[in-house]
Amino acid sequence: MDYSKESLILHEKLKGKLDIVPKIKINDKNDLSLAYTPGVAAPCLEIQKDYEKSFTLTGRGNLVAVITDGTAVLGLGDIGPEAGMPVMEGKCLLLKEFGGVNAVPICVRSKNVDEIVKTIKLIAGSFGGINLEDISAPRCFEVERRLIEDPEVDIPVFHDDQHGTAIVVGAAVTNSLKFVGKEWKNIRIVISGAGSAGIAIAKMMIALGAGDVVLYDRCGVLYDGIENVDDSKKEIAKVTNKTKIKGGLKEALCGADVFVGVSAGGIVSEEMIKSMNENATVFPMANPVPEIMPELAISAGAKIVGTGRSDFPNQINNLLVFPGIFRGALDCRAKEINTEMKIAAAKAIASLISENELRADYIIPSPFDKRVAPTVAKAVAESAVKSKVCKN
Amino acid sequence: MDYSKESLILHEKLKGKLDIVPKIKINDKNDLSLAYTPGVAAPCLEIQKDYEKSFTLTGRGNLVAVITDGTAVLGLGDIGPEAGMPVMEGKCLLLKEFGGVNAVPICVRSKNVDEIVKTIKLIAGSFGGINLEDISAPRCFEVERRLIEDPEVDIPVFHDDQHGTAIVVGAAVTNSLKFVGKEWKNIRIVISGAGSAGIAIAKMMIALGAGDVVLYDRCGVLYDGIENVDDSKKEIAKVTNKTKIKGGLKEALCGADVFVGVSAGGIVSEEMIKSMNENATVFPMANPVPEIMPELAISAGAKIVGTGRSDFPNQINNLLVFPGIFRGALDCRAKEINTEMKIAAAKAIASLISENELRADYIIPSPFDKRVAPTVAKAVAESAVKSKVCKN
Repeated sequence: MDYSKESLILHEKLKGKLDIVPKIKINDKNDLSLAYTPGVAAPCLEIQKDYEKSFTLTGRGNLVAVITDGTAVLGLGDIGPEAGMPVMEGKCLLLKEFGGVNAVPICVRSKNVDEIVKTIKLIAGSFGGINLEDISAPRCFEVERRLIEDPEVDIPVFHDDQHGTAIVVGAAVTNSLKFVGKEWKNIRIVISGAGSAGIAIAKMMIALGAGDVVLYDRCGVLYDGIENVDDSKKEIAKVTNKTKIKGGLKEALCGADVFVGVSAGGIVSEEMIKSMNENATVFPMANPVPEIMPELAISAGAKIVGTGRSDFPNQINNLLVFPGIFRGALDCRAKEINTEMKIAAAKAIASLISENELRADYIIPSPFDKRVAPTVAKAVAESAVKSKVCKN
Repeated sequence: MDYSKESLILHEKLKGKLDIVPKIKINDKNDLSLAYTPGVAAPCLEIQKDYEKSFTLTGRGNLVAVITDGTAVLGLGDIGPEAGMPVMEGKCLLLKEFGGVNAVPICVRSKNVDEIVKTIKLIAGSFGGINLEDISAPRCFEVERRLIEDPEVDIPVFHDDQHGTAIVVGAAVTNSLKFVGKEWKNIRIVISGAGSAGIAIAKMMIALGAGDVVLYDRCGVLYDGIENVDDSKKEIAKVTNKTKIKGGLKEALCGADVFVGVSAGGIVSEEMIKSMNENATVFPMANPVPEIMPELAISAGAKIVGTGRSDFPNQINNLLVFPGIFRGALDCRAKEINTEMKIAAAKAIASLISENELRADYIIPSPFDKRVAPTVAKAVAESAVKSKVCKN
């Protein structure tokens, strides 16, 4: 079904998907004196005395900014900051609906990393967390790294396109391996697409204990020492592809256990699936056209198939991740979202399907499963406390 | 009454005075496909084709950012960006309650004019208007001027501490003159306090046709050629104080018709009021202690007295202004809020009290008079259309 026309009509009618509403009514002088002047001076002075109170005396403690520069919006590419805003509003809406997190969409009119970092840094005192969104690679890596490393940015910064995707793939692979009875340390995972999502997925797979990970981008398989690719690819190449496979997808997939596609429609053939290991897991997540259609992958021998689409089983959707991640990080006033917290999130999602319930076509909960966000939030907050990144 | 304790308890309970709520529910795949992917690509592409649609396909068209650097918060001074946020949230709450305008509070962690301007400029694409708030003079003038002059900032930028105050004083003086039967061209107005509010009030009085305006700051009366004051004061001195009065408040008030105080408590004596012209209007607006207490001003012969306080008659509160100003500017997609629009706002507020209703203790509507914001909005939008600053 084509949702374009109906979505446009909806957006024209709504004129924005979010409303900002007061939590209290202002009906008389007394209300005004308490919520505004002169009474408001008291919470102001409290925050001046103790900065941490900015998280409890204002909305900051439950407020995330969803920030883009409009350079990598959906599959549309660089459409400009304002044009990216319907997606940002959608993200804010989902943060609230699924995680109870207030969120504000903000676009930055610059593609310059210094300017984007500086802008976010200077407004960071307004928020309890920053969700970076739809910023193109490799700039997104530097924006994220510099914000995380900056001690003045004392709130979590999370690039959902990277880590949200990586976490949900982590959950899906975890349950797939459980279902087919393989162990992390024995498997080879092939990831097609070495952009922000692909690299983050690779790192997550390694963190979860994958035997080996091989990344493929449109020019071929990445290997240690590869030239003519950007630094982010050179770096990930150093810790992946242990057997130094060279060539294309065909070479990479031969004997592999898991395929994860975050690349382009139709690039995986039935032959390639047939060449994979027994009980192969295949996640062709390209949207709207997967790397290989699920029915073809299954007929070629894949045991488990999941896509990014809602009209096939096993939808691998990072809606399973970001509301719970931020809910958990905000609840414990975490100053960052570290690897331990991401792994905790992946395991929490996977844990929602018991061994008895696991099926080839049910290895990941539905994005509408209301248990997910609170379960993720709890696991993330516990992990944050354990790894000592909380200010509370 | 001291509202401090009760206000602090309220702020602790609320944890922020604003909530961000979705305008639509996301219950199933269909909802998600329309509000988010894949349907959301359609409004994104529409905005890419036609930038103006960012004002109708996202919430931008009804969204104002209330931005501070925390350097001049209430009468508390430079308490820091985060500590200013309870006030910003209060302002946002009032914009919504009285003007139906969605508003987001943002603090900027910098006192550097270049950085503040750059930050606001880079995030301006997210909003339909910018309300600057509690930025100290003279930096606030430069921040405002540079944003207004920047052709890339194509939305209204309004410093409420300056213009909100100036407009409501404009309305109050308009009705005072009507009540006592004086004409603008024949009166001398003395303004105590030559900070952002004082200078803006002076400009507004001149724009409304005042015969002369004299500004006093703590070092004395401003006059053309004065030295040892900042440029903003030198500049306003050139167009005020036609008779070149020198000295202090005493000298300035002798024979004056109107006093407007935006300075400090208790600095005006009964003697000074007695030296004013007949049927004097006295607006000692310093908070919480006025320049002279209303009962003293009246016993010394003032005909009309108004203060900034809610516990005396004639409260001169810019809550009468900013919700309607932004409502009007957003409704007609004005790209600025010019002098004509400000004058229209002042006259609209004044117009709400008919000649029959006018009394010495009722020259300005109550801040809770629900007619005010829509009346101001309509007048402001009409004036914007007339002065050709609308994009629609």
